[in-house]
Amino acid sequence: MSAPVVAVVGGGQLARMMAPAATALGVHLRVLVESPTSSAAQVVVDAPVGAASDADAVAALTVGADVLTFEHEHVPFALLDRLAADGVPVHPGTHALVHAQDKIVMRRRLTELDAPCPRWTELAGPDDLTAFLADAGEAVVKTARGGYDGKGVRVVRSADEVADWFAAAADGGVPLLAEEKVPFTRELAVLVARRPSGEVRTWPVVESVQRNGVCAEVIAPAPDLDPALAARAVAVAVRIANGLDVAGVLAVELFEVDGDVVVNELAMRPHNSGHWTIDGAVTSQFEQHLRAVLDLPLGDTSARSTWTVMANVLGSALTDLTDALAAVTAADPAAKVQLYGKDVRPGRKLGHVNVSGDDLADVRRRADAAAALLRGESPA
Amino acid sequence: MSAPVVAVVGGGQLARMMAPAATALGVHLRVLVESPTSSAAQVVVDAPVGAASDADAVAALTVGADVLTFEHEHVPFALLDRLAADGVPVHPGTHALVHAQDKIVMRRRLTELDAPCPRWTELAGPDDLTAFLADAGEAVVKTARGGYDGKGVRVVRSADEVADWFAAAADGGVPLLAEEKVPFTRELAVLVARRPSGEVRTWPVVESVQRNGVCAEVIAPAPDLDPALAARAVAVAVRIANGLDVAGVLAVELFEVDGDVVVNELAMRPHNSGHWTIDGAVTSQFEQHLRAVLDLPLGDTSARSTWTVMANVLGSALTDLTDALAAVTAADPAAKVQLYGKDVRPGRKLGHVNVSGDDLADVRRRADAAAALLRGESPA
Repeated sequence: MSAPVVAVVGGGQLARMMAPAATALGVHLRVLVESPTSSAAQVVVDAPVGAASDADAVAALTVGADVLTFEHEHVPFALLDRLAADGVPVHPGTHALVHAQDKIVMRRRLTELDAPCPRWTELAGPDDLTAFLADAGEAVVKTARGGYDGKGVRVVRSADEVADWFAAAADGGVPLLAEEKVPFTRELAVLVARRPSGEVRTWPVVESVQRNGVCAEVIAPAPDLDPALAARAVAVAVRIANGLDVAGVLAVELFEVDGDVVVNELAMRPHNSGHWTIDGAVTSQFEQHLRAVLDLPLGDTSARSTWTVMANVLGSALTDLTDALAAVTAADPAAKVQLYGKDVRPGRKLGHVNVSGDDLADVRRRADAAAALLRGESPA
Repeated sequence: MSAPVVAVVGGGQLARMMAPAATALGVHLRVLVESPTSSAAQVVVDAPVGAASDADAVAALTVGADVLTFEHEHVPFALLDRLAADGVPVHPGTHALVHAQDKIVMRRRLTELDAPCPRWTELAGPDDLTAFLADAGEAVVKTARGGYDGKGVRVVRSADEVADWFAAAADGGVPLLAEEKVPFTRELAVLVARRPSGEVRTWPVVESVQRNGVCAEVIAPAPDLDPALAARAVAVAVRIANGLDVAGVLAVELFEVDGDVVVNELAMRPHNSGHWTIDGAVTSQFEQHLRAVLDLPLGDTSARSTWTVMANVLGSALTDLTDALAAVTAADPAAKVQLYGKDVRPGRKLGHVNVSGDDLADVRRRADAAAALLRGESPA
């Protein structure tokens, strides 16, 4: 049997979690991993070692592949464009991917698409920021590229506070933008999948709970969300997916503010806000990403339970997580644990837990208790 | 992170479907595969090639492993006993496994355990069968070892009809037994998981629909099953799991007859009657088997839907099942397909489909329609 071959750049947990979906669909996964012990390398048979920035390694990855896709956005675009010109399907293509890589390009395009954005401006220099602050009082300054999980972001009241970034930018470094600090009540996310041939499916809108700038917990669906606002959030996400010609999974991170939503960030790949779908939805984001980039019909995205809560395991006081897995199951046999096969480091994403049920308070408590056990903390 | 290592003998679809569960649990799977293109070899990183009968290959498989387990029962017991004596945990152990390998040993022990069996007798020669037939009229003659999926089984009215088997047995071949042909109304199955430390969990009792002696469809739970009989079936299965000291998953295949159940066959590994658990239960039989043989606490076995129907894909008129997968999803986006990565051969188990929902007739129709598409048939 000739299996479709999906080539993936990046060997972290996102590529790792594509493996079970590929197994089910009879898809051959080929993953370019950072090292032979990378999270994905442990569970993917065809896992050549190489850097995402290594043109030869990426080109070799595509030999015989039906499609090239990504678990992160840090890939040289010139190479991708060359491969695409040579007839390799690259999904999402660089014309879409650039919006997940460069926040200035993203804001420009979302503004064109009339997608709700915070007030924002490009910063050619400190004077632009000073002018923006004169009006806004406070600003979120971001590097256009390279930021994630709270890195590359500073909340400032004076241009002096990012003098180092301006110096770097003036020196040919990464350009900056300023955004209004949105007085949001909470963070939401909409996960969309889109095929090259245009089919689009969305999962229920979720609430993303951040701690220290990192996603700690995801609640699906977002509790007490006005149905009209949920519909608006989904419509915004679909407009972006179509407008950017995304192929694959797109995560649209949103702020809820004053009864409306504002787009915060985009990720053009399976995303932490969608890990709940592994156990909580008919089709997981990982299966759907494979389907989408292969231009196969998309699966049903319905929730399988009233509530599913995903809790991240960020760092751990333990070294042997298997013992903790045993403790989790002994305490809560229905908690679904995923471990990423990583060495423990402070704050590192080591795994997650999904818990489903009908009583949200109970489901949250259980998910948090399981994650606490995996972090080596006594349950509250 | 040091992952527990589970060594598995046999590289078919049962070992393949352990891989996604191992990925989630952070378990390192090592599978002894028949060939580099075996179903499991396609998705398991650590998959040495070797025969289950090759003592050196099996011994090498256990180096550094936390446990040795199986996806089939055709392994030399002397070797397993030697490994166990050397301190390798072998689960299930040969003292248990022999009951899934030898039907005479199984019937003797089940009779001791007072588990319900059909009337049966060992056959030292044709005279024993003639005597059994004088009473029963008709008998199911089985080879004690080596039979599966209807092979090694003949329904006879005269000893002449198995003269070849008697000749082979007399020649030092496989011994025979005769069982009463049970006038059953349907076939049921109970899946049990048991840890070495004694914890036992069972999934809901299912109905197994056979066509041409092979399981074609499984309905979970068994429709219209008297709750008292369901409880009795589960109690029988648990008594067997405990009585035989099983470690791992045990499938107990039963006949429903006259308001009671009778044990038909045992399988001491994940089993076709449990494939519905991948999508239909909180914990799949594959995750549970890994948990059980590692002596980790067992997961919740509750059903996730009112009904789940599993339909096997036995052979196909197609060669490219990915096209058929696309057709299935286009017709039914919620149908969950598993493909086993096998070349198409007549009658071969190539994959299965799970469909869940609240309306049994609809769920069955959808599962059967999806399997028909994968077999290359037009839907009814």
